[in-house]
Amino acid sequence: MNGLLVFQSDFGLVDGAVAAMTGVALSVDLNLKIHDLTHEIPPFDTFEASFRLLQAVPYWPSGTVFVTVVDPGVGSKRKSIAARTAGGQYIITPDNGSLSHIARVIGIDEVREIRESVGRRKDSDYSYTFHGRDVFAYTGALLASNQVTFEEIGDVIPKESIVLLEGLQAVVEEDRVTGTIETLDVRFGSLWTNISRQMFEQLGIQSGDTLDVSITNGKTRVYHSFVDYGHTFADVEIGEPLLYVNSMDHIGLAINQGNFSRAYNIGIREPWRITVKKI
Amino acid sequence: MNGLLVFQSDFGLVDGAVAAMTGVALSVDLNLKIHDLTHEIPPFDTFEASFRLLQAVPYWPSGTVFVTVVDPGVGSKRKSIAARTAGGQYIITPDNGSLSHIARVIGIDEVREIRESVGRRKDSDYSYTFHGRDVFAYTGALLASNQVTFEEIGDVIPKESIVLLEGLQAVVEEDRVTGTIETLDVRFGSLWTNISRQMFEQLGIQSGDTLDVSITNGKTRVYHSFVDYGHTFADVEIGEPLLYVNSMDHIGLAINQGNFSRAYNIGIREPWRITVKKI
Amino acid sequence: MNGLLVFQSDFGLVDGAVAAMTGVALSVDLNLKIHDLTHEIPPFDTFEASFRLLQAVPYWPSGTVFVTVVDPGVGSKRKSIAARTAGGQYIITPDNGSLSHIARVIGIDEVREIRESVGRRKDSDYSYTFHGRDVFAYTGALLASNQVTFEEIGDVIPKESIVLLEGLQAVVEEDRVTGTIETLDVRFGSLWTNISRQMFEQLGIQSGDTLDVSITNGKTRVYHSFVDYGHTFADVEIGEPLLYVNSMDHIGLAINQGNFSRAYNIGIREPWRITVKKI
Repeated sequence: MNGLLVFQSDFGLVDGAVAAMTGVALSVDLNLKIHDLTHEIPPFDTFEASFRLLQAVPYWPSGTVFVTVVDPGVGSKRKSIAARTAGGQYIITPDNGSLSHIARVIGIDEVREIRESVGRRKDSDYSYTFHGRDVFAYTGALLASNQVTFEEIGDVIPKESIVLLEGLQAVVEEDRVTGTIETLDVRFGSLWTNISRQMFEQLGIQSGDTLDVSITNGKTRVYHSFVDYGHTFADVEIGEPLLYVNSMDHIGLAINQGNFSRAYNIGIREPWRITVKKI
Repeated sequence: MNGLLVFQSDFGLVDGAVAAMTGVALSVDLNLKIHDLTHEIPPFDTFEASFRLLQAVPYWPSGTVFVTVVDPGVGSKRKSIAARTAGGQYIITPDNGSLSHIARVIGIDEVREIRESVGRRKDSDYSYTFHGRDVFAYTGALLASNQVTFEEIGDVIPKESIVLLEGLQAVVEEDRVTGTIETLDVRFGSLWTNISRQMFEQLGIQSGDTLDVSITNGKTRVYHSFVDYGHTFADVEIGEPLLYVNSMDHIGLAINQGNFSRAYNIGIREPWRITVKKI
Repeated sequence: MNGLLVFQSDFGLVDGAVAAMTGVALSVDLNLKIHDLTHEIPPFDTFEASFRLLQAVPYWPSGTVFVTVVDPGVGSKRKSIAARTAGGQYIITPDNGSLSHIARVIGIDEVREIRESVGRRKDSDYSYTFHGRDVFAYTGALLASNQVTFEEIGDVIPKESIVLLEGLQAVVEEDRVTGTIETLDVRFGSLWTNISRQMFEQLGIQSGDTLDVSITNGKTRVYHSFVDYGHTFADVEIGEPLLYVNSMDHIGLAINQGNFSRAYNIGIREPWRITVKKI
């Protein structure tokens, strides 16, 4: 491990919970370098936790340890696991779907179930509701500081056995591709779809093409227009819409210096669908 | 000291104030390791500052220096102080009640008044309104980097003389305990009371018991129901209420995957009271 | 360089964008010490980006590298630049006005245009919309870790040629000074003007004086009253207004423990103006 430990959670930053986790980790090893991915995952939203891991994890050095605590089932029988990604980063998480995007796009090499005798902080027996501090941060710190090896964390479990969220894949048919809106570029209101750049290439769509875009909310069509596919916002006038490759190599839909989501009241995930068709 | 310096304030993170404090500290010593507890304490809320310190400080290594700047009296005659906790952490703060919870639960060993000739940043004489940057962060950095010892910060003052907030203690009577709601687990809406786990033990309450819970707002009873006392959220169905031991070893009241505070419009602190009675 | 790298952006902290930048920088050098100025600059607001740099940069050690990414023109022909301040800090930024306050108040020594062959992350060719990660954070990390010198980043461009925002200067006339409200001390609602302490001195205004203050929104006068000029909030009663020297050595207007901006519905920048007159 390289000594880097990165936290993600749905705790927010208004209280002392994240600082308690950080203190526990630094009590394991004063020399850990601790960073935050985000703590603003909406409460209990494992899809968002999974998506944000994909947005950040691949850019960190091999040997970095991530701890993600979005844990609606804290205290239930859900497993606590540690996974090694194909990129050599490690992720400590409840087994609840938080690894779905990484598993699909980057790949997971090996998964182990955390043994409580190893990964539970001493004197924390009274506490049943803050595994983030008492199990996950503590285990992550042991691993990141090389006090415990990945192998010592616990036994291997079949990587096919972990919980994965469904319906993440867009579908290419003839002259079109249909996908979902996975999330928003929140501050800017752009839609981030699960349609990859490769799917556009498969359809022979090239930068500069004009495309037929529809967005539906269940059976209702909420948006239908012709939109240019450009490299970047500056390829269209201020206020004009644009299809583009976002920073995760997927297709985004934006208004240059505007807010697409707010302009058309577009939401995310099921039952929202987006279809892009060649004309 | 161990080189760790942790900031708390009511400044928020939307401007450059926290970064100015961080820069001042790193100008004292480039090797300090600086972390944030929270900067989202509601403006001037010394109770919340005190509570959040208790939530985080005990989990940090001995020799960590905390700087907390919630300072409604900046520029008045209120003292600037430095305290050593019974756990060996140090806290730099205006003397305004911010140490109340730590003093009651953890204990304070020694308090010193900061001498301005030591703890005031050079060339900051024009500035009367940002002691966070010009006094507290600077003094904290001197202490955390061992450039100044705790003794050199200033003279000892009697620890009984510091400002403490009142009414923090819950009361056990016969078959019941009455306390206040100190704060919310903000993102999840659970109520965090000042009733300790030990008080439940004193009453012979055990996990699995059903208890009679009332919440009053002054003279108005706002909630009255029978609630199970469980280990963790998963002990009840989704949507059901639950009494539990929170991560600070006190009694919390939650709805599993719901928001108790919002469900019943419950507020915090005086004149809100909660009574738990055996049945 | 001293190994400190500080990020500012309008990305917010709810997603993985900032963490992706941080990961890219640590992939360049594991030993970089990375901090955040703020990521809550309002989207595309280069004025605010410029102002917040002035609030923080001067307090950091010489040799610190700042990366600021508020970039409405991402992907357009706007330049990517690196500047050395008169204080010896470095700032990596799109050339869009983000250096205006630093240039005016602190001074800029030298500006260089970032050469893409140096400052573009490998394998990021597909990405046109996240220069923060692919150019600015990467270049900042190369510079902060001394893998690339300031000179190697790219050719010098005339410092007079960079984009600067206009109308930043307050004006002294006879017995009065007229300026703008540059920003709010957001959490407390105090107005921060572009009137410097020196301008008050030039007018012979002294602490303790009572002054005639008007605030206009275009042609409408929104506030007119007599206000004391004090050292600090505690110089007036709770609830009373006060002119004071803020932490940036400019004149602020506050209500002691109140919110001036909300009390009188005061906004910022053009067409809001504030005039302070001797009586």
